[in-house]
Amino acid sequence: MNQYCFGVDLGGTTVKIGLFDPEGTVLEKWEIPTRKDDNGNNILPDIAAAVLGKMEERNIKRESVIGVGIGVPGPVNDEGVIFKAVNLGWGVMNISEVLGGLLQLPVKAGNDANVAALGEMWCGGGKGYDNMVLVTLGTGVGGGIIVNGKILTGATGAGGEIGHIHMVDDEPDTCGCGNNGCLEQYASATGIVRLATRKLAATTEESVLRNEEVTAKAVFDAVKAGDKIACEIAEQFGEYLGKGLASIACVVNPEAFVIGGGVSKAGDVLLDYVAKNYVKYVFHGCKDAAFKLATLGNDAGIYGAAKLVLDN
Amino acid sequence: MNQYCFGVDLGGTTVKIGLFDPEGTVLEKWEIPTRKDDNGNNILPDIAAAVLGKMEERNIKRESVIGVGIGVPGPVNDEGVIFKAVNLGWGVMNISEVLGGLLQLPVKAGNDANVAALGEMWCGGGKGYDNMVLVTLGTGVGGGIIVNGKILTGATGAGGEIGHIHMVDDEPDTCGCGNNGCLEQYASATGIVRLATRKLAATTEESVLRNEEVTAKAVFDAVKAGDKIACEIAEQFGEYLGKGLASIACVVNPEAFVIGGGVSKAGDVLLDYVAKNYVKYVFHGCKDAAFKLATLGNDAGIYGAAKLVLDN
Repeated sequence: MNQYCFGVDLGGTTVKIGLFDPEGTVLEKWEIPTRKDDNGNNILPDIAAAVLGKMEERNIKRESVIGVGIGVPGPVNDEGVIFKAVNLGWGVMNISEVLGGLLQLPVKAGNDANVAALGEMWCGGGKGYDNMVLVTLGTGVGGGIIVNGKILTGATGAGGEIGHIHMVDDEPDTCGCGNNGCLEQYASATGIVRLATRKLAATTEESVLRNEEVTAKAVFDAVKAGDKIACEIAEQFGEYLGKGLASIACVVNPEAFVIGGGVSKAGDVLLDYVAKNYVKYVFHGCKDAAFKLATLGNDAGIYGAAKLVLDN
Repeated sequence: MNQYCFGVDLGGTTVKIGLFDPEGTVLEKWEIPTRKDDNGNNILPDIAAAVLGKMEERNIKRESVIGVGIGVPGPVNDEGVIFKAVNLGWGVMNISEVLGGLLQLPVKAGNDANVAALGEMWCGGGKGYDNMVLVTLGTGVGGGIIVNGKILTGATGAGGEIGHIHMVDDEPDTCGCGNNGCLEQYASATGIVRLATRKLAATTEESVLRNEEVTAKAVFDAVKAGDKIACEIAEQFGEYLGKGLASIACVVNPEAFVIGGGVSKAGDVLLDYVAKNYVKYVFHGCKDAAFKLATLGNDAGIYGAAKLVLDN
């Protein structure tokens, strides 16, 4: 008898769903909209209907389904309780119980960034590494810590919130979290734009970045074209992120750091800036950590969610 | 039938050994010298003889002994391989195999700082916390991370090496590890003396610290006596350590930090300086972590070693 599982990545605008076999092959993937009206009360019923509909369409019996994993945008504890998801209108809720009740299937829930880390470990850039850290460089800096093949959830689901490691004492700008000087303020897409804006204002030197809208992509494109100012900005970025990852290494001593998120599309040149600064600051016992690019892109969440329920 | 286990704490000058019941009661504890001559080749045979001798003395049969746990001063992986213990003269060795072979009993080995953390979780200041961080403030700053009741070992046994988190960019002095600006340079007993020496040199203000040898104990005694300069030194110490622990919280999100080591004998006043600075820097999701004093003192290692083999 064939066996299946579903991986669900619940985002603020769409829900991605994947049908997997237990070896990590995605048999089909699709999306449905996230209906946030009515305090998000339709979201889990919509997901249940989508999963049950697919099972009927493909004539998959309930006893062939190992379960449904789901990554959600908020802190989730190991029992599947989400404490708050402002984006979705949710308060405290046990997702495993509610969605499991609708589906009459085992459901395992995790935080989306942590679940993405599990996905990259299973089938992506972290394949082969049981102890790894996923670093997601997007609008913010997210993270997921994998220890012995499992997500490190933490006491209140805030494990892997690495974007809020304190880096700078005299930062005048405030981070989204309310603190000042968080890693996210220097190493995210918006952080890189801040570094670039400051650098361009502090010098009159020529740079291709003066002729276009400054984005993280523009900075790394300019680096590849040999622009001196862009290289200095990338060096600053690498210094902050390398230093932050060195701190993380003193805590969890991973085999590998896997870098994902939109900013990571810059590719190997980005890894180089981070890795060389990491080595400058890290404890000697952690110097050999590998630096890899994430490979699953936006699918990391559905892969990780599927793996979450397979490991349940 | 009664059941027993042994906990061994292997130090540079003495080996502490405890005989435990499975509930964590220490039935007897004693010490033997650590013979480091001959590349430390006598150490494990000496330990085996001590354990077997105690079993004979108390008429404990081998089948009543669950096993022997041992904490060693160096990085150890989950299989019990120690990579190097300069202090003992050892190179790479599988401790579980070698000591297990001598004893014909199950042996589980771990790094001494990590094992002490497990001990404090089991029977000490961390009792009741499955997710905790032990912070040992002695000559250096050591640490042990407990996640879901287990030691976080890391890829190369360097998990919990929190004394080497990078804190300061322009530190002129070099840490024992070879880097500059490690947490240990500000939060250990020697670090506090450095802070005090700098502070006293930078001002001509009166302080009782000018009349005696400056030690970490003298600083906190002066704090308790209301000495203004000593309070400023304690504030600096608390700022560095609080900030460092806030970074750790963004990674592993513990329920509690347990502070041990010689410096922690200063007591609650020390916790206060650390906790108030922690809250200033930490991510909001991790604000509720408890701050506790370690309670097992030098016995944390034997307790943790016993727990290590009980969990095996």
